[in-house]
Amino acid sequence: MFIGYSETETFLRNCKDAVIITHQSPDGDCIGAGFGLKDILAELGIRSRVICSDAFPSRYGFLTDIGAGEEFEPQTVIAVDIADVKLMGRYEKIYGDKVQLCIDHHESNRDYAEKTLLREKATAACEIIYDLAKYMGVNITQHCAMCLYTGIATDSGCFRYDCTTPRAHEIAAEMKRSYKNINFAKINRYMFEVKSLGRMKLEAKVSELMEEHLGGKLAVIAVTQDMMKELGITPDELEGFAPLTIQLENTEVGILMREREPNVFKCSFRSADEVNVSTICQTIGGGGHAKAAGCTVEGKLEDVKKMLIDTVRKALC
Amino acid sequence: MFIGYSETETFLRNCKDAVIITHQSPDGDCIGAGFGLKDILAELGIRSRVICSDAFPSRYGFLTDIGAGEEFEPQTVIAVDIADVKLMGRYEKIYGDKVQLCIDHHESNRDYAEKTLLREKATAACEIIYDLAKYMGVNITQHCAMCLYTGIATDSGCFRYDCTTPRAHEIAAEMKRSYKNINFAKINRYMFEVKSLGRMKLEAKVSELMEEHLGGKLAVIAVTQDMMKELGITPDELEGFAPLTIQLENTEVGILMREREPNVFKCSFRSADEVNVSTICQTIGGGGHAKAAGCTVEGKLEDVKKMLIDTVRKALC
Repeated sequence: MFIGYSETETFLRNCKDAVIITHQSPDGDCIGAGFGLKDILAELGIRSRVICSDAFPSRYGFLTDIGAGEEFEPQTVIAVDIADVKLMGRYEKIYGDKVQLCIDHHESNRDYAEKTLLREKATAACEIIYDLAKYMGVNITQHCAMCLYTGIATDSGCFRYDCTTPRAHEIAAEMKRSYKNINFAKINRYMFEVKSLGRMKLEAKVSELMEEHLGGKLAVIAVTQDMMKELGITPDELEGFAPLTIQLENTEVGILMREREPNVFKCSFRSADEVNVSTICQTIGGGGHAKAAGCTVEGKLEDVKKMLIDTVRKALC
Repeated sequence: MFIGYSETETFLRNCKDAVIITHQSPDGDCIGAGFGLKDILAELGIRSRVICSDAFPSRYGFLTDIGAGEEFEPQTVIAVDIADVKLMGRYEKIYGDKVQLCIDHHESNRDYAEKTLLREKATAACEIIYDLAKYMGVNITQHCAMCLYTGIATDSGCFRYDCTTPRAHEIAAEMKRSYKNINFAKINRYMFEVKSLGRMKLEAKVSELMEEHLGGKLAVIAVTQDMMKELGITPDELEGFAPLTIQLENTEVGILMREREPNVFKCSFRSADEVNVSTICQTIGGGGHAKAAGCTVEGKLEDVKKMLIDTVRKALC
């Protein structure tokens, strides 16, 4: 059942001993939403614990260092930024059918919880939680503000992407006026600029494999198993490299091809702006979102590449 | 003489045939401010022309395509985003001592104009011009909004840097609510993500030269003349690569060393956060800003590098 701020407030003010579930492969938004909500519950005198199927990455330490919370038998189950119980990982079995409140911004939310506060237009779950705290008149501590800013910044690509709402900017403005001691630039640097030396050098090597096709409208990076062997990496270590393919000036579509098994290519498509890559991938047995989609294709490197180029050529006509 | 919005309004409403000077090596802020102000003057029925010592880079074509303006004998001289007449390039001789109005946000502004509207805290000159237009009650056309957004976004590193004011976020929010047809994400992509294939491959090669020192607190990229020969580039083509040196997780200081002549190294320092690199550079005959400074050092590569590492080591103590 979908609910509004008023009913969410009533629920939160009356809950106790809450477990807050964040999604697997945690990112800035679910971590910020989880720990930000924990801070808000603490202001209400309610204890809570933030849990995740995977470990929180160390670069979010400035948010998670307060600790996930003490151990207790949960009496309230809340999910944040989770569209589908499958994304709970190992916690799906325990809590998948017991979620009482879900706070989310995904259009694809499966309405699995008893009550769901869904705002599909929001940039981030953290945007909803900020507005909820304001609605409830709860004090937003500095730590809570850092959590919520981090979520909004990460999901909006630091205010770069299409999904950045006017409200996201307004919240950032309000926070910058109210929390003079938060080093927002440092948060942004950790979220958007820094990488490990290994990652930097790997990115450099992968960039060198970039090919332009269709007069520059299509960029392809193909990484075979032989190349991975030479670079000393696994296909999983190339996770997150697909956006590199749409960094060229005239590129409309980018494809990262990874050979997962001999002659089996996982192909990740990205759209720079207007082309719907989900539609393209659907014609070759894949799918996804308009700006990020994928498919798996069997065949020899050159044959698969030729087929992909032909498919994109037709789509661009 | 420093003036406020009221006097600036009086000046603008009464001027005619204005030339608007932008600084050499033009960036998003001076181009946005120049063309944005041109749009505002047009709303007032005043013709103007935007000039620059250098050509406007093609990626700003979506702003400059309206044309710089017709030829006429200027009766009004305005400078935007220019702290010092030296930055006018070849226009210094013609207009350096004739500037009637300067609109700027640089603390270092030399007060060279008859009247100067200076807001040192503003993120960008475009932030000042937006507030000025609102103060004057002048209609901000969609093209003008694109100009002003571009300036604010570029000077703030898309809202990433310390210099990003709450007002910058508020203006972005106001624009996103008012101009539904502006593709803000596309502007951001062109300003912050895209590069040429050549630039991408050069960045890749330069990244591979990255060295970590002082337990990772210092990152150094040294490019000798031999390496440049091998890469087929000139020292100038490495302009803009210094920020690469502070992309590593634990780096506090980054140095890009470029051998401009045999055994003469131009060293560009960057600070990731708290270290003042201007102070460091001053001890070895250079200078600059707290977060970006430089010096030129003669000597053999290994000797110069050792000296720089020692100097940074002392500064970090």
